[in-house]
Amino acid sequence: MSTDDTADTADASTTDDSSSKCGGTTVEADASTTEAESASKCGGATTETETETESKCGASSSSESSTSGCGASTDDEEEVGSTADDFDAEPGSLVTVGLGPGKPEGMTARAKAALADAEHIVGYRTYVDLLPDEIVEDAEDIYSTPMCGEVSRTEEAIDRTLAGNDVAIIGSGDPNVYALSGLALEILESKGGSAKAVDFEVVPGVPAAQSCGARLGAPLVNDTVSVSLSDHLTPMEEIESRLHAVAGEGFTVAIYNPWSRKRRENFQTCCDILLEHRDPDTPVGIVHGASRDDEAAMITDLETLPELGEEEIIDMTTTIVVGNEDTYVWEDRMVTPRGYETKYDY
Amino acid sequence: MSTDDTADTADASTTDDSSSKCGGTTVEADASTTEAESASKCGGATTETETETESKCGASSSSESSTSGCGASTDDEEEVGSTADDFDAEPGSLVTVGLGPGKPEGMTARAKAALADAEHIVGYRTYVDLLPDEIVEDAEDIYSTPMCGEVSRTEEAIDRTLAGNDVAIIGSGDPNVYALSGLALEILESKGGSAKAVDFEVVPGVPAAQSCGARLGAPLVNDTVSVSLSDHLTPMEEIESRLHAVAGEGFTVAIYNPWSRKRRENFQTCCDILLEHRDPDTPVGIVHGASRDDEAAMITDLETLPELGEEEIIDMTTTIVVGNEDTYVWEDRMVTPRGYETKYDY
Repeated sequence: MSTDDTADTADASTTDDSSSKCGGTTVEADASTTEAESASKCGGATTETETETESKCGASSSSESSTSGCGASTDDEEEVGSTADDFDAEPGSLVTVGLGPGKPEGMTARAKAALADAEHIVGYRTYVDLLPDEIVEDAEDIYSTPMCGEVSRTEEAIDRTLAGNDVAIIGSGDPNVYALSGLALEILESKGGSAKAVDFEVVPGVPAAQSCGARLGAPLVNDTVSVSLSDHLTPMEEIESRLHAVAGEGFTVAIYNPWSRKRRENFQTCCDILLEHRDPDTPVGIVHGASRDDEAAMITDLETLPELGEEEIIDMTTTIVVGNEDTYVWEDRMVTPRGYETKYDY
Repeated sequence: MSTDDTADTADASTTDDSSSKCGGTTVEADASTTEAESASKCGGATTETETETESKCGASSSSESSTSGCGASTDDEEEVGSTADDFDAEPGSLVTVGLGPGKPEGMTARAKAALADAEHIVGYRTYVDLLPDEIVEDAEDIYSTPMCGEVSRTEEAIDRTLAGNDVAIIGSGDPNVYALSGLALEILESKGGSAKAVDFEVVPGVPAAQSCGARLGAPLVNDTVSVSLSDHLTPMEEIESRLHAVAGEGFTVAIYNPWSRKRRENFQTCCDILLEHRDPDTPVGIVHGASRDDEAAMITDLETLPELGEEEIIDMTTTIVVGNEDTYVWEDRMVTPRGYETKYDY
């Protein structure tokens, strides 16, 4: 549930808006940050985007974008999209499930079991496409939104829960990392629901930082910070302040949502801040579409990073790992020592 | 592979040294930080610790602590514990595998497959005990060290790899989070081995921060930093400097290795620094032994945190999540808004 809801290359990294670098078409997609738009600049990728057209995709008209019609609440003619009081049924259960990186093999057994238990599965179509066949076949209904944003989709999920269905909200990565667990609780509360009554549960997944770190070797072994460069929901001044604060310390830094056509400047500003505090030779790992078919990875240095912003490997499906002063590269692996070498001989 | 190598309550969080709070016995255990000692103060837990007695547990005498004798290298009388040149065989493969939180259901399918492929599985006994039966039964050999530290055990794993065996090093959480992927690469290099030749691979797992975040609700939805309070491999001045830097910014903070008998002061210092920058009412989530049988969780506030250091819920198997200024508690769930409420009505 690492926030990317978009290009089919997404998943292991977060995406939150985008536009095509290859097609030259700028899609003003979803206004949201964590699952929103995005599109691949790597060619051949999906052009799916999420436009936050709540009037089109609101809970009350949700069935039109459901892959199988559905909507238990429409079936029984209860009103959908209102408050908990509008539903007569005992609420169902609600679980947010992190699928981990792109492929089903990256999913935990607990996640798979939670999806098997769910009657309704709600998610961006890219993630639904990643589900194992048996999960899709067993589900009573799958609600996917190729053209809708995460707010309206999450509202739909809550409505279905309040109407008595056992619902799972899916996403890549982990449901706590720039993802929908918080929004689900916020909407549940706003509708007068109860987390206890719906037995709300979060099933964690492998976050993008860990999927990318694994691909690079061992860059994140010590204290680490994760920062999203999307300023849609967080003011850029705050992001800059956070980057300044951590760049001067010994943290490795995992950068989510590093680039979009609308936010080129954020990437360059981030590079400038990092270079203000860290050596130009600092190793930097870049992983695009971790564990997906179009996965690509490279190791470079901080000095070179700014000029890579326009390259295909960096888009909203990319996670960038910036080393600390001890990080080094050995045989194409990025290693941040934990400090054992200071106390042990080996 | 979240660094905890110790009490059977560990796993979802990191541990790196410890001593019993209940038994009153202070065990001067492993000198290492990520997998080291620790012991439960929750009663009934294991008293296993890892003492870094390299002379006892060094690679050359490793078979004495192997659960099944073994050691391919001793079987064929090659010398173990030396350099790559000492081995005639083609090296095997080496994979570090994150088991995720405590129970097998928290493991990814990829992790399970990697373990099934491995001929030798190397890990702290607590983690070996968490493996599914079929993995244990299928393995040619399991090398577990109830009394040895992670440095000697990792050396043993590298030696076995260089001797031609396909080896998996296991740990809870993720192999990049205060864990052994880096040490494995460092030792492989020091022995003159090659990451390419052994086809070194890291299989990520769900880290403790995510397991604990999921248990608490949605506390880690925005920019987050992870900090270990163990000063065994990182000087306390650096830890303090990092805490000061991030506490004044909008990060949520995941605290690993929060307490041990030997490091009571670090916990209090951490609380003091956080209270210097953040409101006393800031929500704090505490999860002990996430996803284990003795899992315990509570939500409190920053003002109350210092006095909990001596309570059973906080030990080296605990991860603490400190909210940012926007974090709130609703129905025993800790929520850090992503910022949707600033742009959407719901």
